[in-house]
Amino acid sequence: MKLEGVKFDGRGLVPVVAQDARTGEVLMLAYADRAALERTAATGEAHYYSRSRGELWHKGATSGNTQRVVEMRLDCDGDAVLYRVEPRGPACHTGARSCFFTRLAGEGAAGLGEMLARLSRVISERRRALPEGSYTAELFRGGSGRIAQKVGEEAVETVVAALEGERLEEEAADLLYHLLVLLEDRGVSPDEVARVLDERHR
Amino acid sequence: MKLEGVKFDGRGLVPVVAQDARTGEVLMLAYADRAALERTAATGEAHYYSRSRGELWHKGATSGNTQRVVEMRLDCDGDAVLYRVEPRGPACHTGARSCFFTRLAGEGAAGLGEMLARLSRVISERRRALPEGSYTAELFRGGSGRIAQKVGEEAVETVVAALEGERLEEEAADLLYHLLVLLEDRGVSPDEVARVLDERHR
Repeated sequence: MKLEGVKFDGRGLVPVVAQDARTGEVLMLAYADRAALERTAATGEAHYYSRSRGELWHKGATSGNTQRVVEMRLDCDGDAVLYRVEPRGPACHTGARSCFFTRLAGEGAAGLGEMLARLSRVISERRRALPEGSYTAELFRGGSGRIAQKVGEEAVETVVAALEGERLEEEAADLLYHLLVLLEDRGVSPDEVARVLDERHR
Repeated sequence: MKLEGVKFDGRGLVPVVAQDARTGEVLMLAYADRAALERTAATGEAHYYSRSRGELWHKGATSGNTQRVVEMRLDCDGDAVLYRVEPRGPACHTGARSCFFTRLAGEGAAGLGEMLARLSRVISERRRALPEGSYTAELFRGGSGRIAQKVGEEAVETVVAALEGERLEEEAADLLYHLLVLLEDRGVSPDEVARVLDERHR
């Protein structure tokens, strides 16, 4: 690992941004010393330096809410690190998925990407729990043929909306939702679809 | 703005993570003092504190690469801020979209969300430039009817792939790509689709 490029501050620390690699959510900001970066690279598990306890901190070692680090990045001037992680549980000690839950100003809506990642997580949960009264659960009970048929129907409605010039955003939303349900039903992860898109359109 | 919750360090600074609100990309990590946070909230333009120049820094004031801040968030212990921004140009002084372009370890692939956001940006550019030899440009030249027809075809191929249990990730990728082209062609932004999904599935 090219740790020589990392510029630690006077305390021997560098700030680390942890980001959910699937949804893009910024989860937390913490600090790492050289040892924490080395342990993270060696184990693939997020390590930080706890400024309050003054020691190496294996995130989730006690809570179980660890973070698998799929990628470590360094910024252009070497004084900030990005961990792209797959979190096993909430990042925040409050139980929130992200520590950044307090809004100071503005009200930014989630982009399509973040929205689909979130939706896909909810769809997986519905499939496991199959709660009564859930439309998604009903789709899974109906089986693959029924879900595939809905994808076809929503695609036709999208085509009609596009050509008639109305409600396209609503029909496209329905199509995307049913497509995510179909992927989950057939055991294809959205990440696999992303990989195909990446190969074709790079 | 609830600035009383922000805990500035000994230098009167707090680290700020800037994130692209559309794609989820982490763009840069910088610092802000109280004045920078206040200016950001008041103007909707990202302001930081330049530690090298020792002064308030209106990002992009000279380069033109400003950042419109759609949301400011604070973390659970008040010592880190998140700006969700719409960047007008690259965040990095090197001309890169994000400052975090140096890979230290791992090779995390983009998730579906980030991939679609990126693809949608490329599709917009293709539509403006209509470069020769580009399949996307050819679709735009073909017109709405042709693009809508392709969405229908790809949806049928997705349905067949799902039921025959093969290549679903490839057909789903094709469907998503053509759907993004259709949205761009009809002037519907992916953010509008995200808004519909957010309303229906919260």
